Amino acid sequence: MPDVESVDPRTGEVRLVVGPETTAHEVHEICVRARAAHRTIRTLGRAWRAGLLRAMADVLESGRELVVTTADAETALGTDRLNGELTRTCFQLRMFADVVDDGGFLEVVIDHAGPTDMGPRPDLRRMLVPVGPTAVFGASNFPLAFSVPGGDTASALAAGNPVIVKAHESHPATALLCAALMTEAATAVGAPEGTIGIVFGRAAGAQLVQHPEISAVGFTGSPSGGRALMRLAEARPAPIPFYGELGSLNPVVVTAAAAAERAEEVGQGLAASFTLGVGQFCTKPGLAFVPSGPDGDVLVASAAAVIEAGQSRVMLNAQIGEAFQRQLASLKSCLGVREVAATPQRDADGRSARAHLLEVSSQDLIDSMFEECFGPVSMVVRYDDVADLLPVLARVPPSLTATLHTGSDEGAVDGALREVLEEAAGRIVYNGFPTGVAVSWAQHHGGAWPASNSLHTSVGATAVRRFLRPRAWQDAPTALLPVELRDEPCGIPRRVDGVVVPTPA
Amino acid sequence: MPDVESVDPRTGEVRLVVGPETTAHEVHEICVRARAAHRTIRTLGRAWRAGLLRAMADVLESGRELVVTTADAETALGTDRLNGELTRTCFQLRMFADVVDDGGFLEVVIDHAGPTDMGPRPDLRRMLVPVGPTAVFGASNFPLAFSVPGGDTASALAAGNPVIVKAHESHPATALLCAALMTEAATAVGAPEGTIGIVFGRAAGAQLVQHPEISAVGFTGSPSGGRALMRLAEARPAPIPFYGELGSLNPVVVTAAAAAERAEEVGQGLAASFTLGVGQFCTKPGLAFVPSGPDGDVLVASAAAVIEAGQSRVMLNAQIGEAFQRQLASLKSCLGVREVAATPQRDADGRSARAHLLEVSSQDLIDSMFEECFGPVSMVVRYDDVADLLPVLARVPPSLTATLHTGSDEGAVDGALREVLEEAAGRIVYNGFPTGVAVSWAQHHGGAWPASNSLHTSVGATAVRRFLRPRAWQDAPTALLPVELRDEPCGIPRRVDGVVVPTPA
Repeated sequence: MPDVESVDPRTGEVRLVVGPETTAHEVHEICVRARAAHRTIRTLGRAWRAGLLRAMADVLESGRELVVTTADAETALGTDRLNGELTRTCFQLRMFADVVDDGGFLEVVIDHAGPTDMGPRPDLRRMLVPVGPTAVFGASNFPLAFSVPGGDTASALAAGNPVIVKAHESHPATALLCAALMTEAATAVGAPEGTIGIVFGRAAGAQLVQHPEISAVGFTGSPSGGRALMRLAEARPAPIPFYGELGSLNPVVVTAAAAAERAEEVGQGLAASFTLGVGQFCTKPGLAFVPSGPDGDVLVASAAAVIEAGQSRVMLNAQIGEAFQRQLASLKSCLGVREVAATPQRDADGRSARAHLLEVSSQDLIDSMFEECFGPVSMVVRYDDVADLLPVLARVPPSLTATLHTGSDEGAVDGALREVLEEAAGRIVYNGFPTGVAVSWAQHHGGAWPASNSLHTSVGATAVRRFLRPRAWQDAPTALLPVELRDEPCGIPRRVDGVVVPTPA
Repeated sequence: MPDVESVDPRTGEVRLVVGPETTAHEVHEICVRARAAHRTIRTLGRAWRAGLLRAMADVLESGRELVVTTADAETALGTDRLNGELTRTCFQLRMFADVVDDGGFLEVVIDHAGPTDMGPRPDLRRMLVPVGPTAVFGASNFPLAFSVPGGDTASALAAGNPVIVKAHESHPATALLCAALMTEAATAVGAPEGTIGIVFGRAAGAQLVQHPEISAVGFTGSPSGGRALMRLAEARPAPIPFYGELGSLNPVVVTAAAAAERAEEVGQGLAASFTLGVGQFCTKPGLAFVPSGPDGDVLVASAAAVIEAGQSRVMLNAQIGEAFQRQLASLKSCLGVREVAATPQRDADGRSARAHLLEVSSQDLIDSMFEECFGPVSMVVRYDDVADLLPVLARVPPSLTATLHTGSDEGAVDGALREVLEEAAGRIVYNGFPTGVAVSWAQHHGGAWPASNSLHTSVGATAVRRFLRPRAWQDAPTALLPVELRDEPCGIPRRVDGVVVPTPA
């Protein structure tokens, strides 16, 4: 098999060889072990699973220095960002432990036997159960929070499934290290072998999606990569669910009132948001609709000033850097597109990417500008009024987020404008920027294609729903029911005979 | 376009021509109207939607005689069964109205802004919103409860979506009548044009799935038909969710203890269950595992006696009847398969189908017997002991249901047996039969492929989840939030700051 190489994006040099790519036979053995682990994990209960997630967070934090150093050497994201990302990753594992303890995610419904208008009804009890061994594809841009120890892994484990991660080519050493730390934690709490697995190489990833012992797939990446894997998942003799978090433009709309009130603040915020993480965020605002006229001019000038005072920075890997340059050149060549500002070139060898602020009038906005450009660039679209804006916004493909900056008179927001933004995005951000994605109960990180292919989130408590399926028990003897479905209260919220019964205090 | 003909399965003659198949242009116009209706329905609120569903139930019931007569003439299911099915259909529409009023299906989560270990968190509020115009494919075997006014339509409408039904070829007059009655009810409560649409013809069905204004598909039918439409849904420029309720064998396992205690009762129940509706139920028990030896012999003889005393009956249409005869012949030709009993032939022209009870030993059970045979046949599989049974059960494909008949010592059920049955089915039935599918909060009607391709149910309150998607609002001004997401209680259960708050009394 070809070697898996860890490359330093700052120099382009191979740091070390992590090992050979995973063979088809090894993939098979890993999948079989995961299926066996699934049978054991089912018997271990929710409290044990919560403990597993917390143990993983603890071990990852105890390895913080090595994890962050390793990830920085492979991603050039910097130790500040990566320390923050590790904190987020551990926070996320512990939040899913809380979700497991809470038990509401099981969606327990109990209907006692009784008469209905349709005649007697049997005793029916429903809850969600783990779907089975889950394949997770790590993302290039979050070596921790959306990779081996990331949200898909945490939510699939929380749901009760073993996880096999396909390591991203861009940070294999970090992937291997995290998998080793998580395996250490799993072993310490008595998890069966096969609870966490890892494979390297694109071929191994495809084999994973096609393997009969794999029951679901979580993916974060490009629409084209996502669609290719989705097709594999669906062409199987027994198709399985595929959850892709894909591409997103994340439009930002600044109303005339907002521009009149806070042009500088919004301009500076926009520049900070689209350059965060070298623009390598799925929530990067790639399109900003700014009114024509002097207030909008001040906004654009404020954003430009931030960009010009910034630095060019190294992207995650050479391919991503090259794709960014290609797409940027294509955007800049479009009729009516003007470059407003760019960061100065930093390094002589051209390895770092400059941030670019582009501008176009709404009349000149064409559909080819609606392809996500992964990297530090944003296109300001100048518009005359809401009537001018609405048909343009209606053409923007669905996104993970849409942002609306409004004036202080909140009631004055145009209803049609709000509606077109709401329909086109999974999360509507008011008077802020989309790049922060809080990990919480209410978070939603998804949306219609190409934002995602599913009706579920990949961030936040409800992300566990992707890796669960319902099962109902009819007239089951109490002794044969899971504890969560028995009549006696078991400390979790349930719906009993149609009425929600909260967790007992 | 070719004519859409209503055929009497009892005579094979064309009763009437319902009209021409729907043209591509008409499909387009229907889809565009549905999208416009979706925009209006969003503004009408939950109470209005509940009223729409109840109005539809009322109008269908007021047309009961004509609906039942029309359906009987096209399906030969008999007026008793069809009266029951209409009652179920109306009960279902009203249950979804209750679900809409309850509001728990919105899965509202409110996280107020505040500090976290990750720094300050914004205000985040999540709820489910309607996915958009939904295509529903009616089933052959339930002209009402799983067709135009059926569960997919009711749950998609409850979720807030316009519905376009593709009428099943087997009962087009019933489909047209039901659509007219539902449109009358919709108009009476002020629903926008396009709330309910109907198309005829396979080509129109495929066009529906591919149309850009369609946002989701619900389907009940064969695995092959389902897979073909699923591929169309996923090959779209913007793939959409496809929910298929497909094939199912519904294994029944009778333990030695159960056979010893209630051989006659279980045998009679099995025969009644697999011949119900001429065996044309997705929950028909197609495989029954019965112990070898005298108790099992009594069970089989009791089932045989019921079959021999029964009547042959006309199936839904000629193609279904022919397919049944082909598959039956193929099953009977397998090595070791014995015909235990069959109903006497009723009519001279061979239009009716006889019910057949077949038997095979577990050693002779081969994988070709695992294909669902739609019609009045069940295969009894005789086994020696649980050790003999487990590897055989593990080979049975996933089903909508699995049934276990146990002895009165409930604790004595083998854990491995329970586990293999639970893993392979969406609903586990104890000491009963799978053919009744109660419409209730806890029902689950789904399962792993080929039972369904999704992790959702097509019967019961949670069926609405298929036609909803999440959306989150971040730091939204109160005036711009849906009422369900505002701080003041609004009469629905919600999760606020991580804690479930039930409906106020």
